Amino acid sequence: MSEGPGAKVYVFDAYGTLFDVHSAVARHRETIGPSADRLSELWRTKQLEYSWVRSLAGRYRDFWSLTEDALDFAAAKIGGIAPEARATLLDAYRALDAYPEIREVLGELKAQGASIAILSNGSPAMLDAGVSAAGIGDLLDDVLSVDELEVFKTDPRTYALVTRRFGVTAEDVSFQSSNRWDIAGAKAFGFRCAWINRAGAPDEYAELTPDRTLCDLRGLLDASE
Amino acid sequence: MSEGPGAKVYVFDAYGTLFDVHSAVARHRETIGPSADRLSELWRTKQLEYSWVRSLAGRYRDFWSLTEDALDFAAAKIGGIAPEARATLLDAYRALDAYPEIREVLGELKAQGASIAILSNGSPAMLDAGVSAAGIGDLLDDVLSVDELEVFKTDPRTYALVTRRFGVTAEDVSFQSSNRWDIAGAKAFGFRCAWINRAGAPDEYAELTPDRTLCDLRGLLDASE
Repeated sequence: MSEGPGAKVYVFDAYGTLFDVHSAVARHRETIGPSADRLSELWRTKQLEYSWVRSLAGRYRDFWSLTEDALDFAAAKIGGIAPEARATLLDAYRALDAYPEIREVLGELKAQGASIAILSNGSPAMLDAGVSAAGIGDLLDDVLSVDELEVFKTDPRTYALVTRRFGVTAEDVSFQSSNRWDIAGAKAFGFRCAWINRAGAPDEYAELTPDRTLCDLRGLLDASE
Repeated sequence: MSEGPGAKVYVFDAYGTLFDVHSAVARHRETIGPSADRLSELWRTKQLEYSWVRSLAGRYRDFWSLTEDALDFAAAKIGGIAPEARATLLDAYRALDAYPEIREVLGELKAQGASIAILSNGSPAMLDAGVSAAGIGDLLDDVLSVDELEVFKTDPRTYALVTRRFGVTAEDVSFQSSNRWDIAGAKAFGFRCAWINRAGAPDEYAELTPDRTLCDLRGLLDASE
């Protein structure tokens, strides 16, 4: 993997950054009813809790299993969902909506000579399905999953998958995530970081700040570094 | 610390288990307004996220700092709170309501010859303040804080503070927590675990199950093991 000295590696988180994690419930809002937003928020919050708690405890389960577990908890918490809704929502999660700008942005970065990769908590099968549904496989040099390490972000070993794969130092990597906690972990590792703050969320992790904050991925094309 | 062969060590999580983490906002509900419940939930969720994300990233900050950070995020998220409300809520967090049964239960266990301790993410100063406000200092053999390790639960080193302090094996310890994720971590470590499910929450962490599920701490006195 010889990258020239001027080469750039752009690495993207997947869930929340390229794929809209709330699109699964949004597509089936009428089936779920008035608790749909609450279900989607709980689903995501629990999925992340499970990834951190299990990593710290040394009790890894792959991200797809955690996604199923988190949906079951969230559904129980709102008083239950129809059995067929479970399968429907999980199917939708395998093919989440991609944010509209990603094909254009990844294509332009690639045309500029950058290497492009995903670094995700997702298990390889769910990443394959998501990339395929988004139609961006041809733009990616690699899809890196933490699954081989059996630990989730923000463990530094997860970010080191990138530097090892591309033979670069952390400062050579531009890392993009919509998840502020992921930016904190990536910054602690030493990546240059762009926080894609689509929702206009308040900032946090005060001493682990992104180098740039953008409202969507298009900002990567505007601001050449 | 020579405990006899029949001795029991009862270890309690603090925040959520002995102290009601939602009592700080509850006391000042009228000041906060209609977003009070949302504020309290976000405050707690973010406090825990910070503990896990920072532990995994190797970027420890003490639990009091995380409690402040989490309140600031939660307040921004609901559109802001009055500057004096911040100080008021933090003062309330230093002296949270203790659950009503704890003095009786800890006293009875102590009378039966058990060793009693707290194992908490809390920093020593906030634990001192909480124990003092609850008036249970005389019932505790020790108050163990993860602060000396600079890592939070569910890292197994945190639970090992107990076995080291009391010179016992994990199976000799009865660990009580209202936090299901904490029970998962404690079970992974090997403690006998009682989940104090005060709120009737759905179960989770399916393969890291508590030995007992109780609706409050009084159940510890009913079921002698």
